[in-house]
Amino acid sequence: MPSHFQLLKTDTATAARRGRLQTLHGVIETPIFMPVGTQGTVKAVTPVQLREVGAQIILGNTYHLNLRPGSELVRDMGGLHKFMGWDGPILTDSGGFQVFSLSKLRNIQDDGIAFQSHLDGAKLFLGPREVMTIQANLGSDIAMVIDECPPWPCTRDECRAAVDRSYRWAKLCKQIATDNGFLAGGHHVFAIAQGSTYDDLRREAAESLAELDFPGYAVGGVSVGEPEPEMLKQVAATTPFMPAGKPRYTMGLGTPSQILKMIGLGVDMFDCVHPTRVSRNGAAFTPDGMINLRNERYRADSSPLVEGLDNYTCRQFSRAYLRHLVMANEILASTLLTIHNLHFYLDLVAQARARIEAGDFAAWSKAWISRYEAGEASG
Amino acid sequence: MPSHFQLLKTDTATAARRGRLQTLHGVIETPIFMPVGTQGTVKAVTPVQLREVGAQIILGNTYHLNLRPGSELVRDMGGLHKFMGWDGPILTDSGGFQVFSLSKLRNIQDDGIAFQSHLDGAKLFLGPREVMTIQANLGSDIAMVIDECPPWPCTRDECRAAVDRSYRWAKLCKQIATDNGFLAGGHHVFAIAQGSTYDDLRREAAESLAELDFPGYAVGGVSVGEPEPEMLKQVAATTPFMPAGKPRYTMGLGTPSQILKMIGLGVDMFDCVHPTRVSRNGAAFTPDGMINLRNERYRADSSPLVEGLDNYTCRQFSRAYLRHLVMANEILASTLLTIHNLHFYLDLVAQARARIEAGDFAAWSKAWISRYEAGEASG
Ligand SMILES: [Zn+2]
Ligand SMILES: [Zn+2]
Repeated sequence: MPSHFQLLKTDTATAARRGRLQTLHGVIETPIFMPVGTQGTVKAVTPVQLREVGAQIILGNTYHLNLRPGSELVRDMGGLHKFMGWDGPILTDSGGFQVFSLSKLRNIQDDGIAFQSHLDGAKLFLGPREVMTIQANLGSDIAMVIDECPPWPCTRDECRAAVDRSYRWAKLCKQIATDNGFLAGGHHVFAIAQGSTYDDLRREAAESLAELDFPGYAVGGVSVGEPEPEMLKQVAATTPFMPAGKPRYTMGLGTPSQILKMIGLGVDMFDCVHPTRVSRNGAAFTPDGMINLRNERYRADSSPLVEGLDNYTCRQFSRAYLRHLVMANEILASTLLTIHNLHFYLDLVAQARARIEAGDFAAWSKAWISRYEAGEASG
Repeated sequence: MPSHFQLLKTDTATAARRGRLQTLHGVIETPIFMPVGTQGTVKAVTPVQLREVGAQIILGNTYHLNLRPGSELVRDMGGLHKFMGWDGPILTDSGGFQVFSLSKLRNIQDDGIAFQSHLDGAKLFLGPREVMTIQANLGSDIAMVIDECPPWPCTRDECRAAVDRSYRWAKLCKQIATDNGFLAGGHHVFAIAQGSTYDDLRREAAESLAELDFPGYAVGGVSVGEPEPEMLKQVAATTPFMPAGKPRYTMGLGTPSQILKMIGLGVDMFDCVHPTRVSRNGAAFTPDGMINLRNERYRADSSPLVEGLDNYTCRQFSRAYLRHLVMANEILASTLLTIHNLHFYLDLVAQARARIEAGDFAAWSKAWISRYEAGEASG
């Protein structure tokens, strides 16, 4: 059986890779950015608009969907793809990260995490069996294992315990997905390498998980409050020890320039709420940094957000109009800015793919980042 | 020069009419419903989505657009069509009605209305010259005269004064639109017949305005708090005295069944915030009345809002999914419900047009209203 992941090219000057990932709902060209659809919708846009901006795969949040509307309901309605009207690939996280970030009361046990719903305080439990069942209910193309994400900073002992527990849970998740036919059915399960700021523990996590032969691997425990250099250092301490023939994913990251930097470290997949969230606050990405349309300077600006960028927002609307919608608190502001900002991210990774193929990714990436970070508000 | 309005057919059993109205931005088949775009956007949908649901003409609010972003800015950005990315016809009201409904401090004078902005309290003035200048700045295809809309109920003396003042202002508006070339340029100006509950004053208003030979006529002073039978009585007291060869418009109305009833009274054009407003509150129109998706009964309802209705929402999404979006306060709920509800209205007037052509409007309309009003929530 041919591998589900083809490594088409590896850059010589950096660790950047050009790949192709096969899923039950179609092919993903990597490096790729995945728009986040927390509650069964990428906020403020329709699936048709997602396709139009070039989305190849989107992310759903197990924690949120399991609380509301519930994974059994989604299963009964035909699965998440049918439920939300998106027939492309979907990756779901395990819900573990949200338990750590949203639940005040939680208790880590050997077989999972007990916690209270942030919606109604109901007592709930997520372990390997629960998260694999939920993600099977949702019909995820790519399911994530449950892991323990230690805070930043954390002691070596805390990190050691989290790495060990995450390994045991990953192994259990794979066993469950094998036994229930999830993997044999063509769904993928990705493992997550923790290790916080301890390079040797990151290496150990990556290498031990590699032996379990997962369809893909994620760098976990980043984007938890650490500064960017520390985040990049942790990614760089992990990717070299991940199998070259499997896709690599950093969870919950990042800004446009961070994504280019991580592509250069050999990462293939990214997700982040950043482009959708800033859209609902009147901000827009440009090659010269992020701008906020609330600024008076855009009041009579008849130019598009980005000249020549081929999305509906940039083709049809001026900064002046978008600013008007923002100032008037119109829903359409969120929609049009989300279209632009997602397209900006997806166009950026498309450019990165082309540059890796052309062999000049390093120089292009450096120039792009330099221009972006010199801009008025590199967000 | 051929008339801008063709009366294609008049129903024999009712006063319903099938017509065709030519504007600078295209042809409108009547009877027609006009989605309301108060602040330069029909709330929660893009112009592309408006086209997809069959919108032929939309409405803009002079009062709101003149306060924010300002009509001079819209003019400098190329006019309202270009500004908001809608290249179909646009009707704008005069702003007078909003002055009456939104401004607490106002003072009616012979040459217009002095009032304070509801946004920042700024002292403003709208008279015939102001409203025609603003609507010329916006580039309206159909501009409305400024009128005095008396409250319901009002005394005969109050009504008499409002009818007289509205006539003087209408005459001035037409003079201004003639002098500045607005009418000669192919834009239309519609007059508004007031008269409250006084049938003889309604007739007088309609007949005196008819002598001024406007391109179209509206029934004003309805939808100001009066019960439906009173509203229909006022429409019925006005339309017979309007010129048959000109389009007729009732402002700010109504529910689906009210629209059919008014079509039967010979009205051609309608606008109402109803379908867009209820969309943002989780409600949807069906042939059996309006339903609210917050109701628990839709939790696991895999059927579309309306079986067989050909819009994106009904083709792709279940009531269960839409209910989930509503309960999760997702922006996409407003967008998908607005698509459905606008399409429901536009499909209804399309059916009415077909029935007038086929000659069985009266029976069809009666059966449609009967089913709708027997439904769970005729809204
Ligand atoms: Zn971010
Ligand atoms: Zn209404």
